[in-house]
Amino acid sequence: MMHFCSACGAGISYRIPHGDDRERAVCDACNTVHYVNPRIIVGCLPEYEGHLLLCLRSIEPRKGFWTLPAGFMENGETTEQGAARETWEEARARVADLALYRVYDVPYINQVYMFYRCTLVDGTHGAGPESLDTRLFAPEEIPWDELAFPSVYRALASYLHDREEGDAFPVQVETILRRRDAGG
Amino acid sequence: MMHFCSACGAGISYRIPHGDDRERAVCDACNTVHYVNPRIIVGCLPEYEGHLLLCLRSIEPRKGFWTLPAGFMENGETTEQGAARETWEEARARVADLALYRVYDVPYINQVYMFYRCTLVDGTHGAGPESLDTRLFAPEEIPWDELAFPSVYRALASYLHDREEGDAFPVQVETILRRRDAGG
Ligand SMILES: [Zn+2]
Ligand SMILES: [Zn+2]
Repeated sequence: MMHFCSACGAGISYRIPHGDDRERAVCDACNTVHYVNPRIIVGCLPEYEGHLLLCLRSIEPRKGFWTLPAGFMENGETTEQGAARETWEEARARVADLALYRVYDVPYINQVYMFYRCTLVDGTHGAGPESLDTRLFAPEEIPWDELAFPSVYRALASYLHDREEGDAFPVQVETILRRRDAGG
Repeated sequence: MMHFCSACGAGISYRIPHGDDRERAVCDACNTVHYVNPRIIVGCLPEYEGHLLLCLRSIEPRKGFWTLPAGFMENGETTEQGAARETWEEARARVADLALYRVYDVPYINQVYMFYRCTLVDGTHGAGPESLDTRLFAPEEIPWDELAFPSVYRALASYLHDREEGDAFPVQVETILRRRDAGG
């Protein structure tokens, strides 16, 4: 919740600006309208010799659960650059041949996930500051009951299904509606 | 540029928070880190009986130029819902059968465009408040020299090319690097 104008420091009112159709945070003094929009989370499905790279989270939410490397997209980068950056930061792995695979709309937390499939450049990986461990899992080793987020479960299940079907990986957009304790 | 904390109203400093690796707007009093992330623009390529629907912009930037219906994604909606909403708001048209077609990263203005191809439900359309006019264009009528944004030019050109090739519309992610006067 916004209480003060980030431009001038005056108080904020929530009201519908002229010509708009929904409530916004509007400055009582300088009339700046402060829009709040969904955020993009970019991540990777990194594969190496048939195995998939997961990170064991060292931070909340879902500390101690396995996740795909993913995080908030930053200003000044592309979605693909962001996905590669997160994979380096969380799993100390370099990736190549990135291709968009899944878009997950998670409207109840105002997030849009974009997962890229990719390959590890040389198979090396290691825990970054937000990870306790990283590991390459064979399909039958994936810890399905210890995954951090619904988006991770879905992306992995779809990816392994598509790979089984013969390496056609059609891009799909899906909505995640189920509420879990945190995150999509 | 952020000058005041939206949570407590105190002054903002730009510095690298502990454990981070880039400068953020940090509150001098309550230590809140104010992240600023890229925004999503959702839009449609609405087709009806082989024609494509464009809107003549009534507002800056690029007032008086033709555009696809598109705008900022709002909290609480999916990308597909946002694209359909924008098409209603700008072109008073109802759309169906939405399918993701293009993602355009526009890193120099911190935006990500997502265009959905779709069909008009009944062929009706009309100018919303941000449009002077709306029109269904046959491919040979598209006003290529009067399009508002590079993303619109690219999306239309790719779409017509793909349609010519026989109705396979593979999803692609592209980066728009060229700077124009405003917008992607
Ligand atoms: Zn103000
Ligand atoms: Zn503060």
